[in-house]
Amino acid sequence: MRTFSDRLVDTLLKTGSPCVVGLDPRIDRMPSFIKSGRTGNSARAVIRDFHELVLDTVTGLASVVKPQLAFFEQYGSAGIQAFEDTVQAAKQRGLLVIADGKRNDVDSTAEAYAAAYLGENAFDVDAMTVTPYLGGDSMIPFVDACREHCKGIFIVLKTSNPGSSDYQDQTLQKTGRPLYETVAETIRDFGDGLMGESGYSSIGAVVGATFPEEARCLRALLPNAFILVTGYGAQGASPEGAAACFNEDGLGAIVNSSRGITYSFGNENVTKGAFVKSVRENTLRMCDEITAALAISS
Amino acid sequence: MRTFSDRLVDTLLKTGSPCVVGLDPRIDRMPSFIKSGRTGNSARAVIRDFHELVLDTVTGLASVVKPQLAFFEQYGSAGIQAFEDTVQAAKQRGLLVIADGKRNDVDSTAEAYAAAYLGENAFDVDAMTVTPYLGGDSMIPFVDACREHCKGIFIVLKTSNPGSSDYQDQTLQKTGRPLYETVAETIRDFGDGLMGESGYSSIGAVVGATFPEEARCLRALLPNAFILVTGYGAQGASPEGAAACFNEDGLGAIVNSSRGITYSFGNENVTKGAFVKSVRENTLRMCDEITAALAISS
Repeated sequence: MRTFSDRLVDTLLKTGSPCVVGLDPRIDRMPSFIKSGRTGNSARAVIRDFHELVLDTVTGLASVVKPQLAFFEQYGSAGIQAFEDTVQAAKQRGLLVIADGKRNDVDSTAEAYAAAYLGENAFDVDAMTVTPYLGGDSMIPFVDACREHCKGIFIVLKTSNPGSSDYQDQTLQKTGRPLYETVAETIRDFGDGLMGESGYSSIGAVVGATFPEEARCLRALLPNAFILVTGYGAQGASPEGAAACFNEDGLGAIVNSSRGITYSFGNENVTKGAFVKSVRENTLRMCDEITAALAISS
Repeated sequence: MRTFSDRLVDTLLKTGSPCVVGLDPRIDRMPSFIKSGRTGNSARAVIRDFHELVLDTVTGLASVVKPQLAFFEQYGSAGIQAFEDTVQAAKQRGLLVIADGKRNDVDSTAEAYAAAYLGENAFDVDAMTVTPYLGGDSMIPFVDACREHCKGIFIVLKTSNPGSSDYQDQTLQKTGRPLYETVAETIRDFGDGLMGESGYSSIGAVVGATFPEEARCLRALLPNAFILVTGYGAQGASPEGAAACFNEDGLGAIVNSSRGITYSFGNENVTKGAFVKSVRENTLRMCDEITAALAISS
C-alpha cells in the first residue's frame, strides 16, 4: 500500500479540494428531520444518519473528513459505535479519515493508542492527531504504526486558541526561539524517516490558521510535512491565514471546517433538501475562498 | 455533594491506603481461566469479568482505580462498553474512578470532553487526566465541570518517561525555570478557586515518581494539590520517589501501579485463587512500601 502522504496527495489532486469536513456530532443542534420519529436511546442511529447524509453530500467536494472524538465520546459507548459507523461510511465513499482525538501517553499506553486507531483491529482510520507534551519518545509508537500500516499522524504544534501562547509560544533559553519550533524539529525528524514518493512525509502538524505569521514560519521549517489547518470559519481564521500554511505547489496543507459546514443550515426545521444544499454550498464556498487566497499569495 | 478532593481525603483516611490500582485491559495477558469457554467476540465480557475480580480483591485495600482509556479503545466500541461496565462496577464497590485519557482540545471540544467524563450523561467518572499543551483556556471547561459536578482533574505536569525532558524540562527565557513550573502555576491558580474543606483542591497534577528531585520541587510549588504519582513499579520509580510527592500530613498524593498489581501473577495458567492472592499481595506490598518510605522521610 502507498504511504498515507502519497494517498493524501492522490486524493487532493483528484478532487482539487483542500477541504477537510469536520464531523462533530451534536444531536441537539441537528435538524429535526434527522431526529423525528425515533424512540428511546437512538443516539447511534441519529449520528449515523446525519453523517451519512453529510458524507454523501461532500464526497467529491472534499478529500478528507475529520471526526472529532470528543463529540462522539459525550454519547458514551453508543457514540463510539456511531464513530465506527462514521469511519466505515467515509471509507466506503473513498474519503480519507483523520480521527481527531489528540491522544498520547508514554510507553505501552502510547502503543495501545496507536494500535486502537492506526492498527487493523479496532478503528483503523487513515490518520490521527497526537499531542506532544510528553516528549519525543511518546510519539515513537505512533510513528512506528504509521510505517507498519501506511498511516499518518498530525502532531499538535501551534493551536488556534488565545491560550496557545501560554506554553507553545514560550521562548526557550536553549534556542532563543519559541517552544513550538522545538516541537516542529521533532516532527521534521520523524517525517524524514517516513517520506513518500510525493516528497511529503506521513508525519504532519496541526496548526491554527488564526496566527498567519507563525504559520508561515512553521511552513518554512517543515517543507515536507502536511499541515492540518484548524480554526477556519467558526474560530475566526481567514482564507489568507489558511493560505499561509500551503507550499508553492498548492499542496502541503488541508483545511478543516466543522460547524461552518455541517451546522450552518439555520433553523432546526430545515428540510432535507435545504440541509444538503447548505452543506454543499458551505463546502464549495470554503474551497473557493482558499483557492482564491492561494492564487493571490502565489 | 462534597468536592472531589474532600471525597478523596475521606476515602484515603478510611482505607489508609494511597494506592491507585491501574486497570489496563490486555486480553492477551489475562489468565486463561478468565478467557476459557467463551466463543466469538467476547472482549467486553472478558474485560468485565477480569476487572470485577480485581475490584472485588482490591476493595478496602486501595482508594482509587484508574482505568487507562487507551487499553479499552484498542478493543473498539466493545472496549468502551467494557470501560462503562468497569466504571459502574468500581463505583458500586465504593472506589473512586480516575479515567486516564489525557484528553484536551480547544473551545467547545474541550467542553465536549468535560461533558463526556465529568458530566452525568456519559461516563460520569470521579476525575480524569487532562493534557496542558493547548494552554490555560483549554482547561477552563474541565475546571468549570469540576465545580458544577463536584469532580476532579489531574493535569499532566511532569511525566515518568525519559522524553519528558524534551519539552517539559526546557528552561524558559521569561522565568529562568523549567516549563513544567509554569504549568504548575496554572494548576495552582485553577486549584485556588476549587478548594475543599480538607485544604486540598480538586485540580491535581500527574507527576512521574522517576524524578524525585523534580517531584519535591513540584510538591512545594503545589501544597494544596493532589499529585497522581505514576511510573511506580514497572516504570522503575522507587518508594522513595513516590514518598517525595506526599505532604507531611501523609496526604496530597496517590500512587498508581497497573501491571505491577494486575499482571504480576506469573503463568497464564494461574488458578483463580492464585490470581486473587497475587493481586491482593501486590497491592498490600505496594501500600507497605510507600508507608515505610513515608515513615522514613517524615
